[in-house]
Amino acid sequence: MSKGITSRNEDYSQWYNELVTKADLAEHSSVRGCMVIKPYGYSIWEKMQAALDKMFKDTGHTNAYFPLFIPKSFFSKEASHVEGFATECAVVTHYRLKNDGSGNIIVDEEAKLEEELIVRPTSETIIWNTYRGWIQSYRDLPILVNQWANVVRWEMRTRLFLRTAEFLWQEGHTAHATSEEAIEEAEKMLHVYADFAENWLAVPVVRGVKTPNERFAGAIETYCIEALMQDGKALQAGTSHFLGQNFAKAFDVKFTSKEGKLDHVWATSWGVSTRLMGALIMAHSDDQGLVLPPKLAPIQVVIVPIYKSAEELNRISEVADALVKELKAMDISVKFDDRDTQRPGFKFAEYELKGVPVRVAMGARDLENGTAEIARRDTREKQTVNQEGLASYIENLLGEIQENIYQKALKFRNDSITKADTYEDFKKILDEKGGFVSAHWDGTPETEQRIKEETKATIRCIPLDNALEDGVCILTGQPSKQRVLFARAY
Amino acid sequence: MSKGITSRNEDYSQWYNELVTKADLAEHSSVRGCMVIKPYGYSIWEKMQAALDKMFKDTGHTNAYFPLFIPKSFFSKEASHVEGFATECAVVTHYRLKNDGSGNIIVDEEAKLEEELIVRPTSETIIWNTYRGWIQSYRDLPILVNQWANVVRWEMRTRLFLRTAEFLWQEGHTAHATSEEAIEEAEKMLHVYADFAENWLAVPVVRGVKTPNERFAGAIETYCIEALMQDGKALQAGTSHFLGQNFAKAFDVKFTSKEGKLDHVWATSWGVSTRLMGALIMAHSDDQGLVLPPKLAPIQVVIVPIYKSAEELNRISEVADALVKELKAMDISVKFDDRDTQRPGFKFAEYELKGVPVRVAMGARDLENGTAEIARRDTREKQTVNQEGLASYIENLLGEIQENIYQKALKFRNDSITKADTYEDFKKILDEKGGFVSAHWDGTPETEQRIKEETKATIRCIPLDNALEDGVCILTGQPSKQRVLFARAY
Repeated sequence: MSKGITSRNEDYSQWYNELVTKADLAEHSSVRGCMVIKPYGYSIWEKMQAALDKMFKDTGHTNAYFPLFIPKSFFSKEASHVEGFATECAVVTHYRLKNDGSGNIIVDEEAKLEEELIVRPTSETIIWNTYRGWIQSYRDLPILVNQWANVVRWEMRTRLFLRTAEFLWQEGHTAHATSEEAIEEAEKMLHVYADFAENWLAVPVVRGVKTPNERFAGAIETYCIEALMQDGKALQAGTSHFLGQNFAKAFDVKFTSKEGKLDHVWATSWGVSTRLMGALIMAHSDDQGLVLPPKLAPIQVVIVPIYKSAEELNRISEVADALVKELKAMDISVKFDDRDTQRPGFKFAEYELKGVPVRVAMGARDLENGTAEIARRDTREKQTVNQEGLASYIENLLGEIQENIYQKALKFRNDSITKADTYEDFKKILDEKGGFVSAHWDGTPETEQRIKEETKATIRCIPLDNALEDGVCILTGQPSKQRVLFARAY
Repeated sequence: MSKGITSRNEDYSQWYNELVTKADLAEHSSVRGCMVIKPYGYSIWEKMQAALDKMFKDTGHTNAYFPLFIPKSFFSKEASHVEGFATECAVVTHYRLKNDGSGNIIVDEEAKLEEELIVRPTSETIIWNTYRGWIQSYRDLPILVNQWANVVRWEMRTRLFLRTAEFLWQEGHTAHATSEEAIEEAEKMLHVYADFAENWLAVPVVRGVKTPNERFAGAIETYCIEALMQDGKALQAGTSHFLGQNFAKAFDVKFTSKEGKLDHVWATSWGVSTRLMGALIMAHSDDQGLVLPPKLAPIQVVIVPIYKSAEELNRISEVADALVKELKAMDISVKFDDRDTQRPGFKFAEYELKGVPVRVAMGARDLENGTAEIARRDTREKQTVNQEGLASYIENLLGEIQENIYQKALKFRNDSITKADTYEDFKKILDEKGGFVSAHWDGTPETEQRIKEETKATIRCIPLDNALEDGVCILTGQPSKQRVLFARAY
């Protein structure tokens, strides 16, 4: 199969778009900004969901489901929230279509809603309106709830997975009796996200907090994990917010403490989305196609027979079937591709494109020698291996590949953090090298905004446990106590 | 805890509503017709999802995701489909809100969509519009795709789980090269649903086909499973449709056959929804609360200590912890409720309300005797059992309870199928006994409609493998070759 993907060097953005489409991950739909997640792409997302869901449950959370629609008035209740979300959302105004008499289907103007409904862009408002009925006393706290759902934000410029009008995500919404407990929860979930990104996606992340400018609309503190893509642009991979009492006050959610005192409840929310698919693809893949970390690969091992006759295929199938059985018993997902409609070379290219971590090829000579040819997707190295103990060899190799992909991304990320002490240097690094630029900033939103306008770089985060260091702001020369991480970002 | 649920005899409908709310399954939201599925209810739904999803995958299906929104014009493409769905749907007309200058948030009239979008009530149209790009040749077939999603149908009278404006469901959409293969798929999925209903929900179902009147809008044949609730009303628990080439024609989806002939693709669709939660609740529960089949119970076993001192609790905890460990190793979900804020009697009532299948109570005397008190939720029987071998005893008991709940529902259902040979008898049975009435019908939509108007009973289905029998229609006296099943229904 001819892959014909633009190379990363030629046009990184084009490479990404083609890869997503040709590897059967997703495609644009007829509805502006909305994507179709195809079976192969969705099966990766399902693996992400399963791993995350287990991590949420292991940390005491349960799932629930809240309405898709939010009454318009709810948005006005939290002042900064409405500014952040109301400006780009799908608005439901009617609840019926009708036939206009000449066969055209039109909106039935008589079926106008009294109050317009917003398709949820995020669910803080509807959930805190619900929590009011769930919380009376400290005994009802904490509430540790997560929701898997679709949300809609009316984006004008969309890209598959990275920015779509509708996307899939999970949103955790927790309620606590104290500020300390809520902050602890927000931080705990940030670390869950970071663990997931590093151990499953094999994407190293910087853990940090956002500047006030970049905070979630309605949050007191936004924690984030920031990843680096191969083109040197950063990608926000997950956020966890300490919301203080903002939503509890907006929706009048109070509780009686152990001491009998009435107080507003403390909140967090946290989410990751199908955007992680974009991060996964852009962090590891190459000009031949996807490179998937084994833990998230829908097919971890593919076996391709190389034969000249039905008799040869039969003999190969016998060995292959036994290997399939062994691998399945080890919980490794494996496919034996004995289609006779395609030649081995076509299959090799197809599985490279789809990022299958390990390919096993077996021909007549392999049978004679008791060997198989193993190709790993990450390094594209091939090796001839004895059939004896092959399943264990593959099991180890999958672990090695997972680790290697991570280490490669980690080295790239670490090599891409550059210090800049002058504004000239700062701009030069952004233009010539990309990556994160670690620089002093005077702490004002105005400076941050001006740097953004002049360089398109934003402060990705102030890393957690940042080292203190005296310096001066690269733009204004004002004193600064610590460096922050700038980057151009998705 | 005081349950205070209306009894079934007093008011079945009220009993249901109170049970759903008090057992923490779901509640009404602030958005008309939309429900909040609470953590306990959602965890049952998750178990249903997991079991169904596995059954779908075992039969060769994969999941994917299609847009929430459907362009209005898509609905007009399949003539009967538009009549069925366009009249009750949420319509998105705008994509932005704005501040009107005096602090009010209003719809921004400048952000009006060129074409209105419908929030999907079902996805045949958007999916078949997508399949056009996926299918060129017989090699691309079959496509066996399922989607887990939320859908919206603007219902005027809603009831938690049974009929809500937004609900959760799965919808399978498959594409085939031949009519035979599509029919086989539609029937296969009907049997998957029936197996699921009987083996997981413990709800016996009649497998059948709908009359033309009751068919899905756009289907050639609608297969269904029909369950019976304790009040004698039927509930459609799942449907599987053979769609012929209707949607392929509407969306111009053709393929080249092996023989090089161009033809339209054959389709099926099939779905079950959170309505199954309603069926589960209404089929088994009693005046004390939920009765859950063990396979779907979020907590299968609860252990309640009965103690007078901390020292006693410590000793009980030792035994309980060991039991918890043993049960968990058997993959049985168990909770040891050692809360000191509630008394045992309160806990007993709470777990009865929530339908926990097995309750283990242990007090000081049990420790002395090496016993425990076991109460099963289905029959409410108690028994004193030796601690030795207790885990295995409980494992067996859970299997027995699952079977007993099913057998009880099966007996009730079988006792509730009554033959009627005259219209008088027919009406009398409906009013006095309820259940399914097996009667002759002349096969015309007019007769079906008149019976519905006069008795509120509809033809639930023509059972598969129905016995042929000469008779005359209960309403018109016209000749009939088989009986069909009537009932009043949810």
